[in-house]
Amino acid sequence: MTNALGIDIGGTKILYAVLDEQGNIITDIKKCPTPKSAKEIELTLKNIISEYYNQIDAIGLSSAGAVNMSNTMVVSSTPNLPEGYNDIDFSKLSDKKVFVENDANCAVWAEYKKGAAKGFSTVLMATIGTGIGGGVVYNGKIFRGATGNALEVGSMKIFADKRQKCTCGRYDCWESYASGTGLKNCAIYGAKNYQEFSSSMFKNKKPEEITTYDITDGKEQGDAFAVRVYNQWIDYMFTGLVSLTDIFNPDCIVISGGMCRFVDAKAMEERINKESVVADVKVKLAETENNAGMIGAGLLALENL
Amino acid sequence: MTNALGIDIGGTKILYAVLDEQGNIITDIKKCPTPKSAKEIELTLKNIISEYYNQIDAIGLSSAGAVNMSNTMVVSSTPNLPEGYNDIDFSKLSDKKVFVENDANCAVWAEYKKGAAKGFSTVLMATIGTGIGGGVVYNGKIFRGATGNALEVGSMKIFADKRQKCTCGRYDCWESYASGTGLKNCAIYGAKNYQEFSSSMFKNKKPEEITTYDITDGKEQGDAFAVRVYNQWIDYMFTGLVSLTDIFNPDCIVISGGMCRFVDAKAMEERINKESVVADVKVKLAETENNAGMIGAGLLALENL
Repeated sequence: MTNALGIDIGGTKILYAVLDEQGNIITDIKKCPTPKSAKEIELTLKNIISEYYNQIDAIGLSSAGAVNMSNTMVVSSTPNLPEGYNDIDFSKLSDKKVFVENDANCAVWAEYKKGAAKGFSTVLMATIGTGIGGGVVYNGKIFRGATGNALEVGSMKIFADKRQKCTCGRYDCWESYASGTGLKNCAIYGAKNYQEFSSSMFKNKKPEEITTYDITDGKEQGDAFAVRVYNQWIDYMFTGLVSLTDIFNPDCIVISGGMCRFVDAKAMEERINKESVVADVKVKLAETENNAGMIGAGLLALENL
Repeated sequence: MTNALGIDIGGTKILYAVLDEQGNIITDIKKCPTPKSAKEIELTLKNIISEYYNQIDAIGLSSAGAVNMSNTMVVSSTPNLPEGYNDIDFSKLSDKKVFVENDANCAVWAEYKKGAAKGFSTVLMATIGTGIGGGVVYNGKIFRGATGNALEVGSMKIFADKRQKCTCGRYDCWESYASGTGLKNCAIYGAKNYQEFSSSMFKNKKPEEITTYDITDGKEQGDAFAVRVYNQWIDYMFTGLVSLTDIFNPDCIVISGGMCRFVDAKAMEERINKESVVADVKVKLAETENNAGMIGAGLLALENL
């Protein structure tokens, strides 16, 4: 029996637990705040590892950012983590195997091994949060691309005429239409352009003040404006997902992230299978959610022992 | 030394030759018309194989359509090939190993093993012809997806508002903007909307009569209308390629197909590297071209011996 320590390094907190080869969490899940300097992060990780040292065979770390091809360092910018974070060589934290992987890749791996995508061959995950992230597992491996940056699906363009600026500075990124931020953008557009706004429960708000929860709640209450905005948002999500289905020919799409509970997976599945040139994909909501990074990182560390 | 017979089954002709493990063609390249019935295609292939039987260790077939996961049959519709084609079990054509693969996958394999993409780890091919096809090689394997249908990149949507109908019946497929047909669509749009048309060398043509060659020739001659139409077409091609770069993080993109000679690979490379969130991709034009299917199929047959 081999066990791994799974550690999820987030912008605000570090989450960790020991898991077995099946991805079952076999200790309490603990957390601590993410320290404000790279040096302190290193020290905190060393302390966490020493706490479980005798119970584990490997350590898996889930982190924001692109990870190098030897899975030892984070190489891209990580705005929510301190300066110097990219200089940490995680493999040197312990004499046991330390394996670091991008959080989206950890999450798709967790769903593939233990969650909604168990048993499928080609799994596409789309994480719908403030932005949109993604991951693909194909034939038992994560698709990482040439430098570990693959599946930046949030940057896929769904218009070709510079219609809407994204927070990244580029135009027409999928995530500026179909993420949580995208839903807010849909509401702003709708408040200025849909006649339903004048009789909406939000008619006295400024367009910029309408929140994503206004729309999701309003839609539940049957507010015609909220329903139209929500449907437009789902249409944009669909546009990206159907393109990705034609591109990857997945047998399973997992939708995860903070906004995924507002998506009707079954309805999305039917639309995609009707429109896509390739067929028969299942669309599911993620199951491992908050523990996805920890579970995926731990399982990947064991996989790569 | 092992050799393969590479056979490219096209809608109008069958092309074949023997190649060695490096993909060097070591016999004359021969061709014959594609027979009009599935039975005759089977017979023709058997005759071709028996002609080279003593020189070869395996047979590789390149075909239009999606191929099953055991690489023995074509399973999707193939409008340019006769009824009954999907019932042919190619593995039964010979007692030697017969391996069939989709033509786009054969082409990207040929470029990866012997052409412009030799030595790269993550290769994306975009074939710009009447439509747009694609293929990906990642870590020494073709990315086939769950059912062999992956990389239908021509169906990726580059608008999300049902702007232009594609010949496939869907809306806003990349190929309806950026293929050869797409260039014609750009010309039709331009003739109706660009003021440059009134002083263009094509001003007396009906929009629908302007050909792709009118535009590519006109652009060479400095016709302002042709230049604007051409630039719009390249913009649409860029939109799709930059999305695919963010999705696959390739280190090499190969552009192939009948329209590829009208693309400035270096200029496209610079634009993609400037715009993409992932970086440092090389953009190259295909080198194996007309022999790509034959070479790729033969090499794949040897690879899978």
